[in-house]
Amino acid sequence: MTYSVAVSGASGYAGGEILRLLAAHPDVEIRTVTAHSNAGSPLIEHQPHLRSLAHLNLQPTTPDVLAGHDVVVLALPHGQSGAITESLSDAALVIDAGADHRLQSVADWDRFYGGDFHEPWAYGVPELPVRGGKQRKHLVGARRIAAPGCNASTVSLSLAPGVAAGVIDPRDIVSVLAVGPSGAGKSLKTNLLASEILGSANPYAVGGTHRHIPEIRQALAAASPSAAGVSADEGIRISFTPVLVPMSRGILATSSAPIVPGATDAQIRAAWEDAYAEETFVTLLPEGVFPRTADVVGANTALLGLAIDRPAGRVTVVAAVDNLVKGTAGAAVQSMNIALGLPEGTALTVNGVAP
Amino acid sequence: MTYSVAVSGASGYAGGEILRLLAAHPDVEIRTVTAHSNAGSPLIEHQPHLRSLAHLNLQPTTPDVLAGHDVVVLALPHGQSGAITESLSDAALVIDAGADHRLQSVADWDRFYGGDFHEPWAYGVPELPVRGGKQRKHLVGARRIAAPGCNASTVSLSLAPGVAAGVIDPRDIVSVLAVGPSGAGKSLKTNLLASEILGSANPYAVGGTHRHIPEIRQALAAASPSAAGVSADEGIRISFTPVLVPMSRGILATSSAPIVPGATDAQIRAAWEDAYAEETFVTLLPEGVFPRTADVVGANTALLGLAIDRPAGRVTVVAAVDNLVKGTAGAAVQSMNIALGLPEGTALTVNGVAP
Amino acid sequence: MTYSVAVSGASGYAGGEILRLLAAHPDVEIRTVTAHSNAGSPLIEHQPHLRSLAHLNLQPTTPDVLAGHDVVVLALPHGQSGAITESLSDAALVIDAGADHRLQSVADWDRFYGGDFHEPWAYGVPELPVRGGKQRKHLVGARRIAAPGCNASTVSLSLAPGVAAGVIDPRDIVSVLAVGPSGAGKSLKTNLLASEILGSANPYAVGGTHRHIPEIRQALAAASPSAAGVSADEGIRISFTPVLVPMSRGILATSSAPIVPGATDAQIRAAWEDAYAEETFVTLLPEGVFPRTADVVGANTALLGLAIDRPAGRVTVVAAVDNLVKGTAGAAVQSMNIALGLPEGTALTVNGVAP
Amino acid sequence: MTYSVAVSGASGYAGGEILRLLAAHPDVEIRTVTAHSNAGSPLIEHQPHLRSLAHLNLQPTTPDVLAGHDVVVLALPHGQSGAITESLSDAALVIDAGADHRLQSVADWDRFYGGDFHEPWAYGVPELPVRGGKQRKHLVGARRIAAPGCNASTVSLSLAPGVAAGVIDPRDIVSVLAVGPSGAGKSLKTNLLASEILGSANPYAVGGTHRHIPEIRQALAAASPSAAGVSADEGIRISFTPVLVPMSRGILATSSAPIVPGATDAQIRAAWEDAYAEETFVTLLPEGVFPRTADVVGANTALLGLAIDRPAGRVTVVAAVDNLVKGTAGAAVQSMNIALGLPEGTALTVNGVAP
Repeated sequence: MTYSVAVSGASGYAGGEILRLLAAHPDVEIRTVTAHSNAGSPLIEHQPHLRSLAHLNLQPTTPDVLAGHDVVVLALPHGQSGAITESLSDAALVIDAGADHRLQSVADWDRFYGGDFHEPWAYGVPELPVRGGKQRKHLVGARRIAAPGCNASTVSLSLAPGVAAGVIDPRDIVSVLAVGPSGAGKSLKTNLLASEILGSANPYAVGGTHRHIPEIRQALAAASPSAAGVSADEGIRISFTPVLVPMSRGILATSSAPIVPGATDAQIRAAWEDAYAEETFVTLLPEGVFPRTADVVGANTALLGLAIDRPAGRVTVVAAVDNLVKGTAGAAVQSMNIALGLPEGTALTVNGVAP
Repeated sequence: MTYSVAVSGASGYAGGEILRLLAAHPDVEIRTVTAHSNAGSPLIEHQPHLRSLAHLNLQPTTPDVLAGHDVVVLALPHGQSGAITESLSDAALVIDAGADHRLQSVADWDRFYGGDFHEPWAYGVPELPVRGGKQRKHLVGARRIAAPGCNASTVSLSLAPGVAAGVIDPRDIVSVLAVGPSGAGKSLKTNLLASEILGSANPYAVGGTHRHIPEIRQALAAASPSAAGVSADEGIRISFTPVLVPMSRGILATSSAPIVPGATDAQIRAAWEDAYAEETFVTLLPEGVFPRTADVVGANTALLGLAIDRPAGRVTVVAAVDNLVKGTAGAAVQSMNIALGLPEGTALTVNGVAP
Repeated sequence: MTYSVAVSGASGYAGGEILRLLAAHPDVEIRTVTAHSNAGSPLIEHQPHLRSLAHLNLQPTTPDVLAGHDVVVLALPHGQSGAITESLSDAALVIDAGADHRLQSVADWDRFYGGDFHEPWAYGVPELPVRGGKQRKHLVGARRIAAPGCNASTVSLSLAPGVAAGVIDPRDIVSVLAVGPSGAGKSLKTNLLASEILGSANPYAVGGTHRHIPEIRQALAAASPSAAGVSADEGIRISFTPVLVPMSRGILATSSAPIVPGATDAQIRAAWEDAYAEETFVTLLPEGVFPRTADVVGANTALLGLAIDRPAGRVTVVAAVDNLVKGTAGAAVQSMNIALGLPEGTALTVNGVAP
Repeated sequence: MTYSVAVSGASGYAGGEILRLLAAHPDVEIRTVTAHSNAGSPLIEHQPHLRSLAHLNLQPTTPDVLAGHDVVVLALPHGQSGAITESLSDAALVIDAGADHRLQSVADWDRFYGGDFHEPWAYGVPELPVRGGKQRKHLVGARRIAAPGCNASTVSLSLAPGVAAGVIDPRDIVSVLAVGPSGAGKSLKTNLLASEILGSANPYAVGGTHRHIPEIRQALAAASPSAAGVSADEGIRISFTPVLVPMSRGILATSSAPIVPGATDAQIRAAWEDAYAEETFVTLLPEGVFPRTADVVGANTALLGLAIDRPAGRVTVVAAVDNLVKGTAGAAVQSMNIALGLPEGTALTVNGVAP
C-alpha cells in the first residue's frame, strides 16, 4: 500500500526536511504541499535542494486542501496547528511538528506559550524510557502524534535513563546546548542574519524562559520510577541555556545531574547501556568517547557520550543530534512508520554526512 | 621611556596576538621575536596579518637571545617556559602566557600537567576579586606574571563576585563553554582541521579532565570570603565542559551555581555590580541582556550577563571573551601596563570588531 | 548478485564518502576497508559518522588484502594507486579516485604531477559531452575507471556543452572556484587548520599551477566538435583559480568564455539544454536562476546556471557540486553502476541536505 | 582642533564600522548618531560591540539633527543620501558611504540604480592611479566625498595599475569575488539568513547586473593612459560575479585581464610595484604570495597578489580587503583625514585581526 501524504509548512526548514526524508520513502506518495504566504509558487523556489520534488506547487494551508490524505504532517508555527487539526478526519494519521499538542499541563502551556490549549497527543520520541517500557508503545497504531521539540528530545534522551534507574537526581539538572540557527526556522529576524551568527556564539532564552523546559520536565517525570515520587513541577528542576553557534544544523547538548549517593559507576553506565542497547537510532558511545554534531548531519541518530565526574559529583551526558532530523523530521517519520506498522527505520539513515 | 620587548613563540596564535597588541603600544619597542622550528624565517610568513612588523625575523628561543630586554613575553607550549625563565634577569619583567607558573598546588600540577613544578607567579587577571580587594594589587610592580588560561579566567571572572559575596554555593558549579579552535594553538592535529570543525560542535576534555579546572578552583578559593571556609580542593567543585564550535576565536561560557539560601535577587545582582562597576574591561550587562562573542572580537573586554533562575535554584552567568585578547594577550598587556606603572588600558580597546 | 567491494584509503575523506554511499547500495557488500598508517584500528574511530560500518576494521593496503573482490575502489594520495593497480586482477572492476590514471598526455603528467606515468583509464564523468555522444559510452562494461578530479569535472561539465556546440571560444576560459577544504583531504597542513579557514577566503595554486588544469583541457578537447580543430595544448586555454572558503564541502565554480561571433542567445542556451535535458544528475536551471552549494550537499547533483553577458561578451556558467559526491565518490559509484550494468542512479540521490 | 562628527545610518553595519574607527580617532568627537526606524533607542542596543559609545542615543536622520557638525558621514541605503546632502552646509565635510554621488554617467545611474541622479563627488579611494597621479589629489581640501563601493574599489585597485601602464587589455576583464554577507547590510532578507549562508557558497547578480560594474568601469577609464583612447562604456568591459561565502566580512577578488602583446613580465610586475610602492594601505605581496581575507580583518589594508599566467595569456590579481574597512568605513576615514589635512592614517591600522 502506498500512503498519500500532505505536508503543510512546506516552504520552511522543518517542512523541507520532512519532504527530503519522505521523498526517499518507498511507501508514501507526497501528494500535497502547502504553505501560507508562499502558496501559489513552486516548491522548488523555496526548497531548491529538493530536485526530485520540482513538480510540486504550494497550495494554501486549509482543511479542504489537507483533506483526503492518509497522512498529514503539520510543520507550522506554534499555535497554528491546533485549530487546523480539529477539522481533519479521525482516520488520517496527523503528525504535528509544532508544539500545540505536546504539553499535558495547562499551566505550563499558559506560562510558556499562551493562547488556546490543545489536548496532548502521543509524544513522538520512540526510544524514550517511560515507566513500564518505552514511549514507542504509545505510538503503535496512533492517529495523532506530537513530534518533539528538538532541544527537548535531545535533553530528555540524554537523561531519562539515569532518572529511570534512579542513579541521578533530577532536581538539579543543568543543560547547555550549542545549537544551529535552522532550529529557529526561516524567520526574518535580525539576530538570525548570517552576519550576526558567523564567527559568534549567541545565547538566548537564558534563565529559565525557553519553551522546551516544560517539555523536558514532562518527559523526565514520565521516565521516573515512581509516579508518586516525582512531579514535573517539583521533582524535575533544570537550568537550561541554548547557545546559537555558526553551524546550520545540529544540537550538541551537554547535560549533567548530581550522582545519587551510593550509585556505583557500573550502575550508572548500565542505566544508559540497558536503555539503548537495542535501539537503532540512539547509541551510547564507548567510555571516553563523545560525539560531535557533524557525525549525525542528515541522520536520524542520537549519539550519547557519558562521563562520571566524581570530583564534581555529577554525571555528564553529551548528546549530538541533527535538530532537523532526529530532532524534528526524522522523529516524525520514525513515529509515522511505527503508527502505520511499517519497519521503523524506513527512509531513515544512521550514517551522517561528514565532513 | 620606551621599553624593549622580546616575544617568544611569535609564530603561534598567542604570540601573534601579543604582537598585534604591542605593535600599537606607544611605550614599547618590539625588538626581538623568537620561535622554535620556525626560527630563521621572516615573521610575516607566519603572521601575514602583521604588516607593520614585516621587518622582523624569527630568532631561536634561547636565553641569550631573550637577554637584555626590559620585557620578555613567553608564549610557549606548557612545560617549556619554566626552564627558560630561570635564566632570565631578575630586573626584566617576564610574562608567561603558558601554564608553568599559574598553579600553587603541586598536587594539581602533577595531576593535570606533570613534569617539573615551577613556583607560582602573580596571576594576570587584574579585575578578579580576591580577599581584600582585586588581583590587580599583586601586579603593581611585579616582575614575574603568569597570564591566565583563557577558559579559566573567563569562568573565574564570571563567578568570583558571587563567591566573594557568599550568594552562590561554589560546591556545585557547572560551566559549559563554546570555544573557538584558536585557543588550541597552531597545532597540526586532525581534530583541529577545518573540515572537522566547520558545521560541527565538538566537545573535548569531558568529565573533569581539562587543565583549567584547578586554575578556576584556585581563583575562586582566593575570592572566597574566608580563607578557612573554602579550600580549592574541597570547597570548590566544578563540572567543566568545553565545546569547540566553528568560530576562529571567542569563548562563550555559561556558568551556573546554586543560590545560597536566603540570598535575595538584589543581593545577588549587587554582588556582580559592585565587583565590576569601576572596571573598564569587565562589564556586567543590564538585566535581561546577554553577550555574544562577536561583540568582543579583538577587544580586551569581558561581557557578563546574569540571570537569577529561581525555578532551577541557580544563578547563571554568561560571559563572552576573546580568548586571544582578554583570555591571553590582552591580559598579558594589561598586566604589563600595571606592572610598569603605565595607564592600565594602553594599547587595549573595549570595542569589538563586529559583525 | 551482490558484489564484494574493497575500499582503500578508507580513513580519509574521499574513502569515507565512498563508504557512506556504498553503505546504502543494495547490490554491494563492503567486505574490506584498508588504510596506511591507520591500519589495525576500527574504521569507526576515523569515520565516526559511519555508524552502520562500525564492525569494520582497517587492514593494510596491500595487493593480498585487495585481492578477491569484485570491485576495488582506491582513494589514495596521487601517485600511490598506479603501482597497486598493476597487481590487481583483470576481472575486478577497479576505480581509482586518485589522479594516476586520468591524464592521456605524458607531458602534462610530468609537468603537473611527476613520477611514473600510468595509462589513462575510462574517465568517470558519464554526462560529459564527447565527440559522438557522452562519456557514459566508455564506461559501459569497463573494468578500469578513473574517477575525476572534483574541480576538473565541475568546470568540464560547465563548459563542455558550449565547446561541443561551438558557441563559446575555449581559448580564453576563466574559472574561479569557491571550494571547501575537504577536497584537500585529511592532511595535517597549517593552511588547512580551522583557525586559518574560518572567517577567511584563501586562494591557492594561483596562476596556472593547479593540477586539474590539464584534466579540464583534456575533457574540453574531447568535447570539441572537430578532433583536428582543437588540441588540449593549443586550443584550450584556461585561467584557473581555486579559493578555499569556510564550508566543509562544496564547489561553486564560476566559469566564463567569450561568445563566438554570431552565436545567438537561443543557440547558446540550447547548447546546454540539449546536452543535459535527459540527465538525472546534471541540471541546467531556468534562466535567471543560479545554484548554491547548499543545494547539492550529500547529493550526486551538478546544478548549472547560465548567463549570457553581452556587454562583457562572455557566457558565464555557475556550477554547484558537492566535491565529495558528484566530484568524487558519487562519480565513482555512478560509474561503477554503469560498468556493472546496474541502474545508473542506484544509491545516489538528487536531493541535497539543506539548510 | 577637535572636529564634531555626525554619523547617520548608525545602527547598520557600515555606520557601525565608521563609528568603531572614529571612536579611536584622537581628532574627532562623535557628537551625533542617527537612524531611521531605530531612532529613539540607545546605540548600544544595535551595536553591542561599541562599548565606548554606550552613552549615545539614536536620533532621527533629519537636516536639523545633522546641522552644525564639522563632519557628516552618511551611511544610508542607496538613493536616500542625495536629498539630504542638499540641505547640509557647504562648510561641512560631507562623506557619503552610499552610491548616490559616485557615478558620473547619468545613463549608468539610470540603468543600474534609477531614481534622481545626483552630481558626482570626489571619489574616496586615495591610492587609485588616475591620469597624472593618484586620486588622493582630488580629496585634499574636499568638502564632498563619495566613499566607494566595496567590491568596486577592490577590483579597481587590483587592475588600475595595469591599465594605467598599458600592460593589460581592459576590454576583457573577468572578476569573481568571494564576499561576506555584511556587505549586503543588516537587511531582513531570506537569502541573508545564517541558515542560508552557513556551509554554502551563493552567487548573486550574475551576468552583468551588479551595481558596482559601472563604478569599476569609471575608475579604470580614469586610470587609462589616454583620455581619448578608452571610454568607460566601450573601452572597459568586465564580467563580474560576486559569490556570498560564509564569513561575516571580507572580499577576496580574483580579477584577470589579457596581457597586452609585447608586455614583458618585468614590465607587468613593475606596473603594480610602482603604483603602490609608496602606499601604506595598499601592498603588493612578493611574487608567488597571495593574500587571504583573514589578514585584513579590521584593517584598512588592501593586499594584492599578482600572477602572470602565460599559458592562459592573462594577468591574475588576487586582492583581499575588509569590505567594511578599506571597502567602506576605512576609505571614508582615510578620505576624511586627507580632506581635513590630518595625517592620512590616523585611526587606521595596517594590521589585521587574525586568526
